[in-house]
Amino acid sequence: MSERKPLRVAMIGTAFMGRAHSQAWHTAPRFFDLALEPVPAVIVGTSAKRTEEQARMLGWAEASTDWRAVVERDDIDLVDICSPGDTHAEIAIAALESGKHVLCEKPLANSVEEAERMVGAAERAFAMSASIAMCGFSYRQTPALSLARQFIAEGRLGAIRHVRASYLQDWLSDADAPLSWRLDRSKAGSGSLGDIGAHSIDIAQWLTGQAIVEVSATMRTFVADRPMGVAAAGLGGVAIGGAPRGPVTVDDAVAFTATLSGGALGVFEATRMATGRRNANRVEVNGDRGSVAFDFERMNELEYFDGRSVDKRAEGFRRILVTDPTHPYASNWWPTGHGLGYEHLFTHQVVDVVRAVADRAVPSPSFAEALDVQRVLAAVQASSAARSMATTVKRTPE
Amino acid sequence: MSERKPLRVAMIGTAFMGRAHSQAWHTAPRFFDLALEPVPAVIVGTSAKRTEEQARMLGWAEASTDWRAVVERDDIDLVDICSPGDTHAEIAIAALESGKHVLCEKPLANSVEEAERMVGAAERAFAMSASIAMCGFSYRQTPALSLARQFIAEGRLGAIRHVRASYLQDWLSDADAPLSWRLDRSKAGSGSLGDIGAHSIDIAQWLTGQAIVEVSATMRTFVADRPMGVAAAGLGGVAIGGAPRGPVTVDDAVAFTATLSGGALGVFEATRMATGRRNANRVEVNGDRGSVAFDFERMNELEYFDGRSVDKRAEGFRRILVTDPTHPYASNWWPTGHGLGYEHLFTHQVVDVVRAVADRAVPSPSFAEALDVQRVLAAVQASSAARSMATTVKRTPE
Amino acid sequence: MSERKPLRVAMIGTAFMGRAHSQAWHTAPRFFDLALEPVPAVIVGTSAKRTEEQARMLGWAEASTDWRAVVERDDIDLVDICSPGDTHAEIAIAALESGKHVLCEKPLANSVEEAERMVGAAERAFAMSASIAMCGFSYRQTPALSLARQFIAEGRLGAIRHVRASYLQDWLSDADAPLSWRLDRSKAGSGSLGDIGAHSIDIAQWLTGQAIVEVSATMRTFVADRPMGVAAAGLGGVAIGGAPRGPVTVDDAVAFTATLSGGALGVFEATRMATGRRNANRVEVNGDRGSVAFDFERMNELEYFDGRSVDKRAEGFRRILVTDPTHPYASNWWPTGHGLGYEHLFTHQVVDVVRAVADRAVPSPSFAEALDVQRVLAAVQASSAARSMATTVKRTPE
Amino acid sequence: MSERKPLRVAMIGTAFMGRAHSQAWHTAPRFFDLALEPVPAVIVGTSAKRTEEQARMLGWAEASTDWRAVVERDDIDLVDICSPGDTHAEIAIAALESGKHVLCEKPLANSVEEAERMVGAAERAFAMSASIAMCGFSYRQTPALSLARQFIAEGRLGAIRHVRASYLQDWLSDADAPLSWRLDRSKAGSGSLGDIGAHSIDIAQWLTGQAIVEVSATMRTFVADRPMGVAAAGLGGVAIGGAPRGPVTVDDAVAFTATLSGGALGVFEATRMATGRRNANRVEVNGDRGSVAFDFERMNELEYFDGRSVDKRAEGFRRILVTDPTHPYASNWWPTGHGLGYEHLFTHQVVDVVRAVADRAVPSPSFAEALDVQRVLAAVQASSAARSMATTVKRTPE
Repeated sequence: MSERKPLRVAMIGTAFMGRAHSQAWHTAPRFFDLALEPVPAVIVGTSAKRTEEQARMLGWAEASTDWRAVVERDDIDLVDICSPGDTHAEIAIAALESGKHVLCEKPLANSVEEAERMVGAAERAFAMSASIAMCGFSYRQTPALSLARQFIAEGRLGAIRHVRASYLQDWLSDADAPLSWRLDRSKAGSGSLGDIGAHSIDIAQWLTGQAIVEVSATMRTFVADRPMGVAAAGLGGVAIGGAPRGPVTVDDAVAFTATLSGGALGVFEATRMATGRRNANRVEVNGDRGSVAFDFERMNELEYFDGRSVDKRAEGFRRILVTDPTHPYASNWWPTGHGLGYEHLFTHQVVDVVRAVADRAVPSPSFAEALDVQRVLAAVQASSAARSMATTVKRTPE
Repeated sequence: MSERKPLRVAMIGTAFMGRAHSQAWHTAPRFFDLALEPVPAVIVGTSAKRTEEQARMLGWAEASTDWRAVVERDDIDLVDICSPGDTHAEIAIAALESGKHVLCEKPLANSVEEAERMVGAAERAFAMSASIAMCGFSYRQTPALSLARQFIAEGRLGAIRHVRASYLQDWLSDADAPLSWRLDRSKAGSGSLGDIGAHSIDIAQWLTGQAIVEVSATMRTFVADRPMGVAAAGLGGVAIGGAPRGPVTVDDAVAFTATLSGGALGVFEATRMATGRRNANRVEVNGDRGSVAFDFERMNELEYFDGRSVDKRAEGFRRILVTDPTHPYASNWWPTGHGLGYEHLFTHQVVDVVRAVADRAVPSPSFAEALDVQRVLAAVQASSAARSMATTVKRTPE
Repeated sequence: MSERKPLRVAMIGTAFMGRAHSQAWHTAPRFFDLALEPVPAVIVGTSAKRTEEQARMLGWAEASTDWRAVVERDDIDLVDICSPGDTHAEIAIAALESGKHVLCEKPLANSVEEAERMVGAAERAFAMSASIAMCGFSYRQTPALSLARQFIAEGRLGAIRHVRASYLQDWLSDADAPLSWRLDRSKAGSGSLGDIGAHSIDIAQWLTGQAIVEVSATMRTFVADRPMGVAAAGLGGVAIGGAPRGPVTVDDAVAFTATLSGGALGVFEATRMATGRRNANRVEVNGDRGSVAFDFERMNELEYFDGRSVDKRAEGFRRILVTDPTHPYASNWWPTGHGLGYEHLFTHQVVDVVRAVADRAVPSPSFAEALDVQRVLAAVQASSAARSMATTVKRTPE
Repeated sequence: MSERKPLRVAMIGTAFMGRAHSQAWHTAPRFFDLALEPVPAVIVGTSAKRTEEQARMLGWAEASTDWRAVVERDDIDLVDICSPGDTHAEIAIAALESGKHVLCEKPLANSVEEAERMVGAAERAFAMSASIAMCGFSYRQTPALSLARQFIAEGRLGAIRHVRASYLQDWLSDADAPLSWRLDRSKAGSGSLGDIGAHSIDIAQWLTGQAIVEVSATMRTFVADRPMGVAAAGLGGVAIGGAPRGPVTVDDAVAFTATLSGGALGVFEATRMATGRRNANRVEVNGDRGSVAFDFERMNELEYFDGRSVDKRAEGFRRILVTDPTHPYASNWWPTGHGLGYEHLFTHQVVDVVRAVADRAVPSPSFAEALDVQRVLAAVQASSAARSMATTVKRTPE
């Protein structure tokens, strides 16, 4: 084990996602048998002082404020991008062109055009240097959702007819919650759509193995302006009475119906104003022979209905505690019944990206899959702008 | 009590709804103090023999196969219409013109035009003879939903931003479940839309006190034909191998987004193919200060989130067992914690209609309110036919 | 059907149980095909005026205040005893000796000695005149619990190791809730033990088919006196400030461990002071191959775990909505997913007693089974009095 | 921050608990602001080779097989004992006598006598060198249970009347699950009682602030012998057909009723044979004004009933997602709604022990509190041996 080759990581970004990724880089090798040894080498932030502190706190060997220099260093193998969406394309492409592996937070980019360029760079880098490019739709790494996908892939649900996914949060319910970069279109690209709706889209396509081919959408901004002046680092900011207010330039909520390539009917909703729903990332899939349902607020559970049973008396949604050694990712953790938490998604993500690097394999989710989500985001926005007219998701490059 | 005036009832229809209404007419006066004494006088069916049997079984004094004669009889005070939707307009209008009170199952009619004529007849009859005309959106009479409405009306939820309602059943999941009148557009008007989606629409408008003003919809028929030859009386038919198949001419599922008059975003779905969901009539409403959520599969419970609390530590959705004497309808039943069942909605409906008759008051839901649902159904169908284009619900008479 | 022989019923008692039984006698023949036609003939109360009113309200042909006269009348076939426990033995024995069938509320009596005499009378009456004697442990008639019993009898759970049953209510949490006959030992025999614990004992023995052979118990009275002066008819009384207080002479709560005849370990608890638990009649049974769990607050659901599955990934407690035509009692009611309420237990009880009468069969629960519960109640009280010493349940007559 | 004094840790034990503690020592300083810097210095096992591997895998600087040498080293500040119960006393006392701080897994010892000696050593060491001695009842560090304790301490529940705690697992349901040290009385002291029942006892006493003063208990071994020959490291072993079988010398299940010092009635059960219950560590506390309920299978949730409300209509158990910054431990982790997992209990435990060391304060749970649990364990065993006779928990030294 000691002779494992190191995988030297540089992480761009120090906020919420930076903390989650840091924990994952440290934890993964202690619980999973990896062919490479991740080394948390450099953390990159904007403020020198704060980044130094974060390096110490989060366990990175070195701090930097110059991502361009870092992504070109020879002693870096993988660049982990946790900065806002408007920076993804530039950093990822530079890193890939330097022969680095890339793990990039979602959504992949703020536009289809950017995402297409990133996919192009990823394809060239893979061909040239077997560089891996993976996007951080980390909910895929939830054991319960991975199990759901297994069930669907095995045909347990039969033909899929319904996908309903709603991602409900409430941290913007209060009209005086402060402005942050997540409410600024130039930084975030969109609001609830790209921040959380993108997860639902990715989950739906990945679970079912079907593409969303058409959408009819509506977007809504309930609160037009919010207090400024807080260095709001994302979720959970505090309102400040009497502060000047700035405009919210993204959607507070989005809803759309969809057609999937296999004919299923999709119903999607994402909002950060569902009072009382803290992080209810929910999805239900109904096939003609069975169903699954999931809510991230109970992330260790999968509801599963088996409609193929011989004895109808015993039919019912079963609550599977997805913590058994037979379940995805679970055998590396604790005894059955001892659940995992949010951060473990990121640990599993590290496991998956390291395995892809070691195997020189296309990771999942790849940049191409993330582009596919981006195309759906674009179609949602187009449909909403066109009075919800059913809008085909464009799959060919623009 | 013995000197109470009788309210002599004729019921048209003997199937599922006929049984539910019969039980209600018998039960209501034993648990509620009514100003009039309901008398189950005549039951009207199509087959003489079967209707005789039903009269005995369901406790009606007399059986008939001639609804026209019955609705004109002087010894009938109220006509209760439980027959398929294509018969509603003709029977209701005749009954109202004969000065009878009318309770009519939902949806009110199979078209806006029919519904408008029914409302006209109802208005004339009310003016002329104080005849009451009520529509059977009986889920309103669920104590938990009545409580939800109280909370919203009292401002506990604040400004309403989200309504999400899905009505999920699965009795058509099996592609070999038999044809019935509910799958025949000429009888039923529509499929999941009118059968169960209509309930969701009515609940949403009634709970929030807001009208649905615009919809963007999509409808889907997953199974194009089904086995014929079964006198399928509705839900729960049995498939017959090798039987000839006839076309399904209604929707299996429908989904739509909506704008409510107060600005809330609505997301609606109705399907009879959500495998494992037996009768999941669900609704959730989020305001800026609180939320409620309901699922008819747990009809004695209301989930309520109070976001106005002083101590954030104690915030959470509470499961209210809506069986306390302080809850709507509940004080007339059993001690707290001893729940009610499906049939009690109909008993409460009888209570409400009898009270309206006694008080010469406009009942709730009135025919006018039911017409309002019908207009939404029409807009949904129009939007679905127009590639989901956002479609205004027409409120002025056509 | 019209030629069905009548079964003329006299009901003793007009309070909570009287209302529930009345509804059942009226409803059962409208939903179940019974060989006899129940006729609600006479209701017997203590106050002439109030009993007259109850007769009208609850639908009984005649009112009386003289139970002795009524149980001897030739035009009465069945006596339904809903009065307090201290009256059961005298009424039931008189009725049986007059050749009547008897349905008697639980607990069967206030002492083992009384219960033994009742069983003796029942045996003689059955031998003499095929008179039926059934005890009203009506929770057995919950479809979900009947299904649980089927599963256990079929061996789905394997060898039974654990039974845990708790019956939690909270209507006495408030120390100022008023005194009622249920808190008076001379009337009620015991408190939580006989009132609700008796249900748990009966359910445990009936579900598993095993007898409780030994108990170790403790009983507790938390509130020693309560306001008097209210004609408290049972549950849900209202406290009166400043009223004189009288002593509570029964247990507020009881807990005991038990050994069942097959070796299982039982854990039982009954209380009317579990704040927030309205009517949580819960039971869970674990076998070496599976488990069931039930809570009456969700009476239409049974939780079932199948540990015999081939694929461990899919194991989990399933929530069975016990409303399918394949489920006990359910095919006579509504479509799948449309639940029943508390009162339906009593309707099913009427169905069962009428069938026993028609078939001249020993009913379930018989008086002998109810005596068996009484013996456990006695052992619980004896153990509690003897510092919880493990105490054998005496099965041979005293 | 860089000038923080190190806290050099030696951990004895490499199995399940060793892995959990390792993760905690690494994680705590990255998420909590600690006054000392934990250094994972030495891991101690029995096999040199395996311990070397574990050191690498689990991130310890050094490996050793000689705990005696390690606990005397000057470069070790804290000894973390994760080995089986029969080793606790000797190691802990030696470490304390060497002036080390000690964190010791639960149960503290295998007998009251051992535990008393440990407390004596702890008291001397605290007086002499401010050495901290803490016991690993880590469920206390669950945010939801910490919140429950706050609510009770604040008087939200009023006077406590009921505590019911059941700890249900099922990894021994299969009669062919292998023998392990946990089934050997000489190693483990007891079975379900000490392994999991001890947690329930500690939780009950700690939550309510009341001591268990009397118990009436029964213990049961359902499977007398099990397959040998597996180096079964604890939970989740695999059965081996045809293997020779050895005796199980501990209890499979235990149940007891209890009296708490404030008069509350306790009902406890612990079993590793509740088929389908994976790790259902449950506790419910009812006071005269409110209640809390918890199940570790949903560790991020606390159920709370507030019976002091003005409006009875809105009363219900609320599901608090204990992930808000206002909740215990939660502000150091993720945004509201993003839950924690099992391992976080151990991280919080590290936080608590490090704070106690830095503050020279008595930690919670202290050895004295753990001795108190040990005394209850002894009383349970004594009562079970004495036919469940109510048995006083001895608080004075034996």
